[in-house]
Amino acid sequence: MMIIMRSDASQQEISQVVERVEANGLQAHVSTGAERTVIGAIGDGRPVQRDLFTLLPGVDRVVPISRPYKLTSREFKAEDSIFPLNGVQVGGQGIVIIAGPCSVESRSQVLEVAHAVREAGAHALRGGVFKPRTSPYSFQGLGQEGLEYLAEARQQTGLPIVTEVMREEQIPLLTHYVDVLQVGARNMQNFALLHAVGESKHPTLLKRGLSATVEELLMAAEYILSHGNRRVMLCERGIRTFETSTRNTTDINAIPVLKSLTHLPVLLDPSHSTGNWNYVSAIGRAGIAAGADGLIVEVHPHPEQALSDGGQSLKPERFAELVRQTQAIAEAVGRFVYPAANHVKP
Amino acid sequence: MMIIMRSDASQQEISQVVERVEANGLQAHVSTGAERTVIGAIGDGRPVQRDLFTLLPGVDRVVPISRPYKLTSREFKAEDSIFPLNGVQVGGQGIVIIAGPCSVESRSQVLEVAHAVREAGAHALRGGVFKPRTSPYSFQGLGQEGLEYLAEARQQTGLPIVTEVMREEQIPLLTHYVDVLQVGARNMQNFALLHAVGESKHPTLLKRGLSATVEELLMAAEYILSHGNRRVMLCERGIRTFETSTRNTTDINAIPVLKSLTHLPVLLDPSHSTGNWNYVSAIGRAGIAAGADGLIVEVHPHPEQALSDGGQSLKPERFAELVRQTQAIAEAVGRFVYPAANHVKP
Amino acid sequence: MMIIMRSDASQQEISQVVERVEANGLQAHVSTGAERTVIGAIGDGRPVQRDLFTLLPGVDRVVPISRPYKLTSREFKAEDSIFPLNGVQVGGQGIVIIAGPCSVESRSQVLEVAHAVREAGAHALRGGVFKPRTSPYSFQGLGQEGLEYLAEARQQTGLPIVTEVMREEQIPLLTHYVDVLQVGARNMQNFALLHAVGESKHPTLLKRGLSATVEELLMAAEYILSHGNRRVMLCERGIRTFETSTRNTTDINAIPVLKSLTHLPVLLDPSHSTGNWNYVSAIGRAGIAAGADGLIVEVHPHPEQALSDGGQSLKPERFAELVRQTQAIAEAVGRFVYPAANHVKP
Amino acid sequence: MMIIMRSDASQQEISQVVERVEANGLQAHVSTGAERTVIGAIGDGRPVQRDLFTLLPGVDRVVPISRPYKLTSREFKAEDSIFPLNGVQVGGQGIVIIAGPCSVESRSQVLEVAHAVREAGAHALRGGVFKPRTSPYSFQGLGQEGLEYLAEARQQTGLPIVTEVMREEQIPLLTHYVDVLQVGARNMQNFALLHAVGESKHPTLLKRGLSATVEELLMAAEYILSHGNRRVMLCERGIRTFETSTRNTTDINAIPVLKSLTHLPVLLDPSHSTGNWNYVSAIGRAGIAAGADGLIVEVHPHPEQALSDGGQSLKPERFAELVRQTQAIAEAVGRFVYPAANHVKP
Repeated sequence: MMIIMRSDASQQEISQVVERVEANGLQAHVSTGAERTVIGAIGDGRPVQRDLFTLLPGVDRVVPISRPYKLTSREFKAEDSIFPLNGVQVGGQGIVIIAGPCSVESRSQVLEVAHAVREAGAHALRGGVFKPRTSPYSFQGLGQEGLEYLAEARQQTGLPIVTEVMREEQIPLLTHYVDVLQVGARNMQNFALLHAVGESKHPTLLKRGLSATVEELLMAAEYILSHGNRRVMLCERGIRTFETSTRNTTDINAIPVLKSLTHLPVLLDPSHSTGNWNYVSAIGRAGIAAGADGLIVEVHPHPEQALSDGGQSLKPERFAELVRQTQAIAEAVGRFVYPAANHVKP
Repeated sequence: MMIIMRSDASQQEISQVVERVEANGLQAHVSTGAERTVIGAIGDGRPVQRDLFTLLPGVDRVVPISRPYKLTSREFKAEDSIFPLNGVQVGGQGIVIIAGPCSVESRSQVLEVAHAVREAGAHALRGGVFKPRTSPYSFQGLGQEGLEYLAEARQQTGLPIVTEVMREEQIPLLTHYVDVLQVGARNMQNFALLHAVGESKHPTLLKRGLSATVEELLMAAEYILSHGNRRVMLCERGIRTFETSTRNTTDINAIPVLKSLTHLPVLLDPSHSTGNWNYVSAIGRAGIAAGADGLIVEVHPHPEQALSDGGQSLKPERFAELVRQTQAIAEAVGRFVYPAANHVKP
Repeated sequence: MMIIMRSDASQQEISQVVERVEANGLQAHVSTGAERTVIGAIGDGRPVQRDLFTLLPGVDRVVPISRPYKLTSREFKAEDSIFPLNGVQVGGQGIVIIAGPCSVESRSQVLEVAHAVREAGAHALRGGVFKPRTSPYSFQGLGQEGLEYLAEARQQTGLPIVTEVMREEQIPLLTHYVDVLQVGARNMQNFALLHAVGESKHPTLLKRGLSATVEELLMAAEYILSHGNRRVMLCERGIRTFETSTRNTTDINAIPVLKSLTHLPVLLDPSHSTGNWNYVSAIGRAGIAAGADGLIVEVHPHPEQALSDGGQSLKPERFAELVRQTQAIAEAVGRFVYPAANHVKP
Repeated sequence: MMIIMRSDASQQEISQVVERVEANGLQAHVSTGAERTVIGAIGDGRPVQRDLFTLLPGVDRVVPISRPYKLTSREFKAEDSIFPLNGVQVGGQGIVIIAGPCSVESRSQVLEVAHAVREAGAHALRGGVFKPRTSPYSFQGLGQEGLEYLAEARQQTGLPIVTEVMREEQIPLLTHYVDVLQVGARNMQNFALLHAVGESKHPTLLKRGLSATVEELLMAAEYILSHGNRRVMLCERGIRTFETSTRNTTDINAIPVLKSLTHLPVLLDPSHSTGNWNYVSAIGRAGIAAGADGLIVEVHPHPEQALSDGGQSLKPERFAELVRQTQAIAEAVGRFVYPAANHVKP
């Protein structure tokens, strides 16, 4: 780390910092400029507390040199991480599309959606059975009953299942039924959950928190990886800003930024990142054009009757159109969308 | 709710909305203006899905009338909620100050801080034993061992204990040891945890999430109240904005806004809301001047050796000065800080 | 507008609001729900001050019904506005690309860039001669000398010129030399400038402010339109958020949102919206995929020697590649990029 | 500046950076750590373009060492800058209160307010005659007529006048009539205006932009100071964030941060920073408690009839109460509010 001294720091203050650096087993490199002195604290790569130095007299600020994540970084692993998902590959040249309702509401609903998205070209089925709702008075999900319906949908369509996990205790049950655990935006920094998901070794879709930086998303992924689970997909789903014309602001920049910083696959969820079905297709296309490895999209056969998120759900025919647009954009950027035929019935 | 039609909505589209309103057991009041028609959907107070109407043709937008929280609102309960905390009252005319280290690091550390903050005038001791850390490589807390130290500090000083709960499973253990459960900013929308804390009926300090709106904070409190726990204190601890000169931005406006919207006590955490000890006292004073019912402050005898948050911790002597300043400000706004003598040894 | 009363509002308070509504020449429609009363104030479309009602006793809040902009809205004019720009059309099916250096630095630099971007396929040349710089110690632009160089570049290449106007006094000079006036992000709410640009009737590129909402951008355009200038192009150039991995956050959602709310052409500036040349092409592609009518891109033959914005400038060969990618994306969304041959030498 | 290399940077890339550093007349200090190499570029204090190095191969990022502002910094001038304002001192131990209507609406209105705020204890009168309005259809101010009324108010009450300047051309007229020029939030980065205000040498109140960082506010002040005008007061007036329960978010942290970074006086405008008269007094008190040197408050005798900003204006009797509260808070922090008697009739 680099310790930048105040321009009025005394020689004694500088010496004190150097002593503290060396007392912590680091080497001190002193650079004296026209205005300020900067002291480089050179170590062996182990983390050192910044506050050890921030609080010393004469110190203006401390700038870290190393990035705080390792296993998730491109510097640690240069080539893209690629995970198989029932006949398709997430993170390679092919684009993967996950679709389905926000919540599993009934057997007939989930089967209807599953067949519809399968036919439209989706590669996996999403659907929540445990729902994080901001209001205690809203629908909270079907629980295990919903998992049974998802399993039936999987059997009928061959689509692997993506479902959100909200509590560590749900992991054994969920891993029995579902192919990919989703860690939702509100749990991105639920470290106990990240720890448990890491130990489960189950493929995981990690969504960015509403106000999480790209670096914090990578730190959350680091939690999962550091507990032994390397099959992590990241998902941009919109951040919170001052703009209110859409529910969230799609941080489209995060797509190429993440692709440059990490080897993990990066998906976009245009349903949550806009919160309005009118804009989902445009932003889905934009995500693929910017380099995303896939999309996760909310689809509902009767959005106006949905128990949650109806306003951002596409009807199946609009979703089918989005799949065709995605294919066209994928080709324009030298990639492709896996054909439906790639699916293997389980 | 009010359904605002597009200015080019047809008469048929208007009729369709009216039918949908009535089909859902609501009354429709149609107001036809020079530019637009607005349809009021009047019900009996039960929640209705906005998306039922958002998606209908000709609808511009839907504006809710009711606030989404009830039990936490001043409209539900006009007078301030006041909770006893070992001889002092949180939420009344008296100001309450909670202080202590970010993390319990050792027996000697916590005892030293406890005596120091007791002497300086604090009314409760804070200290984390389970730590939410953004890096999996950082210190994660002492766990039950830390609770034993806190219990000893409580016995020696009479100070009640405030500790963060991170998982539902920790609740039985924590309620055995501590007087107030803290729900941290990163868990403000961990609904499973809110549910469990609600059922515990244990006094709870609920911190605002980094990017949570005031309304979402009140909804999170509603979760706890709706599960039967009325002893909830709210805590502003800074929000995430574009400004980087401090770690967070203290939303000082939230103090009077919350006091007007809810009957629950409102505290301020100037340590996290600034992230820099240099500014803690100024912002703590500002909080009391703005109407906060108390402060929660990080204090460490040797901040430069702290295992976490050293940079935002006050030394005991500076904390004692903040207590004196708080007394002066409290008087200026017609309130008072409880004297240390109010404490009862357990 | 709709006036929402508090749930504890008295009958007298409601009557007082109704009287005030009627005293202002509006009709009052009273809807009484289970919890609250809502009073619709129905007028003839003329603006009414919200604060007339906000401050009355018993009022919870006032919700406007009308949008505050008119001439810029799709409700006012449904079909796309299309403007000719030296042989191409901005706002139609064809995509338009504007490119050039941040600042005009010298005659040789601007001529070199002009020929390079002409050859790569750009349809207009951008280049600043009056520079808004956050530091008074930075390069402030060449002024009229720069305009002469731009005129020479225009004569040699046939490319129309886009240049930023910073002060009303510059308008006569600039309109003599340049084809499109650019109002920069920092001046988006410089209302005196908007007024003057409106009266100039000169084609104008209006950039969104760093923290301007979509609605405020449309209000700024309304200023220009309401003073008689209908040839306004809007430009998303990134907003300020908490994310720091890129200089700004591209609000990609704003592209389809603007296209649905207004008939004016919408461009994207991926150079400013990312602030890093590494991400410019990905975000440029995303903009076209999301429905933008064109791009404005910073290009510099020697970015590392640029006097401003070198870090976000593309070299000519990378820019040529972006033009090719834009063509591919345009085709994927059923549009096209104008061929270079469309240009007419002046 | 410090140039941080990628962890996989080659020796050749490091050498190339060193050469570039030296070719620009700087000294290169190379520090080689376990993971990365950092190259300090040590100069003589003159600004160097960061992009000179950002774009070189192998460079991860470039961290500036010097602050970009000089004249405004505490490092340049340690003691507080204090300016006389008609018998009181801005920036010293005494607190200064500026009050008045958002807009000058009529002779009777401004005289009524002037006498009311004078009596309540204000030290200066604010009132806009040129209004920046987001809508072209809103009241735009009385112009010179308004200045005549302000002059009359000044003569009758002895209160110095603070008025916003929107265009450089207004400066001669305004400096003839008013004691302090106000640069509004929307013009904080109108560099042409800052330049002209600097040359005017007239006392200036510079408001922070809605999305300006503290550093950008100081850079804007630097513009004014660097053109020869040292009498600049800074004003926090709320920033734009995701929170919508108040119009803006008061960045109360900015008060102590600014006081530590600069010698210039720092005021708070609680009217704009909340946008709601209900919260103005609480936030005004908070500002003084946090260390502000004064307040600027909107006062209107009949807020419900105000042509602008009625909803955030205090009635004179509430303002008088705020002055009394300010006195109490000032005493609590060891300061005082100037008595009305300090004013000198002009």
